[in-house]
Amino acid sequence: MSMELDQNWLDKCVEVAEEAALKAGRLIQDAFYEEKQVELKNASKDLVTETDRSCEKIIFEHLSQAFPDYQFLGEEQAGESQSVDINDSPTWVVDPLNGTTNFVHKFPFVCVSIALMVNRVPVVGVVYNPILEEVFSATRGRGACINKQRMEPSEQKELHRALLATETDTAGDVSSVDAATKRLNALLFRVRSLRMSGSCAMSLCGVACGRLDVFYDMSFQGPWDVAAGALIVEEAGGHVFDPSGKPFDIFSHRVCATNSYLKSAVVEALNGPC
Amino acid sequence: MSMELDQNWLDKCVEVAEEAALKAGRLIQDAFYEEKQVELKNASKDLVTETDRSCEKIIFEHLSQAFPDYQFLGEEQAGESQSVDINDSPTWVVDPLNGTTNFVHKFPFVCVSIALMVNRVPVVGVVYNPILEEVFSATRGRGACINKQRMEPSEQKELHRALLATETDTAGDVSSVDAATKRLNALLFRVRSLRMSGSCAMSLCGVACGRLDVFYDMSFQGPWDVAAGALIVEEAGGHVFDPSGKPFDIFSHRVCATNSYLKSAVVEALNGPC
Repeated sequence: MSMELDQNWLDKCVEVAEEAALKAGRLIQDAFYEEKQVELKNASKDLVTETDRSCEKIIFEHLSQAFPDYQFLGEEQAGESQSVDINDSPTWVVDPLNGTTNFVHKFPFVCVSIALMVNRVPVVGVVYNPILEEVFSATRGRGACINKQRMEPSEQKELHRALLATETDTAGDVSSVDAATKRLNALLFRVRSLRMSGSCAMSLCGVACGRLDVFYDMSFQGPWDVAAGALIVEEAGGHVFDPSGKPFDIFSHRVCATNSYLKSAVVEALNGPC
Repeated sequence: MSMELDQNWLDKCVEVAEEAALKAGRLIQDAFYEEKQVELKNASKDLVTETDRSCEKIIFEHLSQAFPDYQFLGEEQAGESQSVDINDSPTWVVDPLNGTTNFVHKFPFVCVSIALMVNRVPVVGVVYNPILEEVFSATRGRGACINKQRMEPSEQKELHRALLATETDTAGDVSSVDAATKRLNALLFRVRSLRMSGSCAMSLCGVACGRLDVFYDMSFQGPWDVAAGALIVEEAGGHVFDPSGKPFDIFSHRVCATNSYLKSAVVEALNGPC
């Protein structure tokens, strides 16, 4: 299969991904204010609903109709297998409903996240929040948009004026929760304010469009949480990296994103002495 | 002046408060996606914008036209004096823009909060989020609504399945930030997940409509943050109390709200041994 990233092909991929996201988003909208049947995945606190599964199915069908021989890695399908690795072939990496806990609780930070990865690198990313009616999209090398308008990260240069978002893993063991609250404690003195919204993909898009200045997450579940959002941040002009300051590894469960100015201050704050 | 809480009078008060909130909400909508001129109040991290002041003015004018001899306590006006106490006369208690930091950062949890207090007790409460287009309202003894539909808190009975919201005060001294993160650490093992949205009034309404199961805030600024929201929670059928478990004091800067089931579990979690 040909791998060249030509414009027409990228345009077609992002268009099909947006169509799939809008279809799934309608299911989320329709179910949002209803009571949900909730199941627990594995023995964790990780929730899943019928809507997660229906959204994944509708996305898979829409994408595979347009691109029959591309691979597909969806959160729900991956949850049933052990491996989440992918190869170099074109692969759709999909979280059909990022923020399932929010969805169950009718808290409006929920989204569909669809990325196309080629050679294990995202080249197309679409994140759609059907409650706030926001479509974030990016194609590699060609910038990022919110509702078809070009967007950029914030211009905030000072960490003490930054709005920081993160997530805390309530299912962690004692030492990881202790480490998380110790980090928070150190950061609280250095930023303007702290948000936790419960959707990793939405928080990445928040950095991309300048709503948030900094986001980090030390315990996201898999590449479907970040593949689209990370591309969207980079294409908007922000930085995505490992919280240690090293390059971001999409399979590592750790991510940090900032505008173009705050990376070094954040790396120091996350890793320096408290 | 007659103090009886007759139905017609309550209806008139909530109608006028909603009109005022919608007027101010239009100013917030218009300015939301613009860049803002930000000032710092006092020497704190507390932000104020021209929109906060314009909203307070338009609300004051609308309310005083309908009720010329009622008193008025607005956040911005109060910020300039030292006292925030009120007497037993009918008093509008107004936060023209709850969530100013969110407003500055274009993060969609912002609202107008308007309460009418009589004998130092809220009898009418209106909270309007012009970005999510949600109007929460309540009149004492007569229930609470979201967008004119009756609403109720969640039916969650188990704290480990609860969605908890709180705020952390980034302007606090070392001991108060340490106490806040120590509380968070203890609670993280006991709940499903944690949110911080940056608007105390919106979080109270979140408990009232069942989006959140528990909310606490140990450092809100004044009665304008909570007067409307606390009434809305109680009229929806939830509990509002001091985090110690004692009765709520609207002038105390400390509040906890739960659905009708979780109060005792939350009081124990907030005050028991870690």
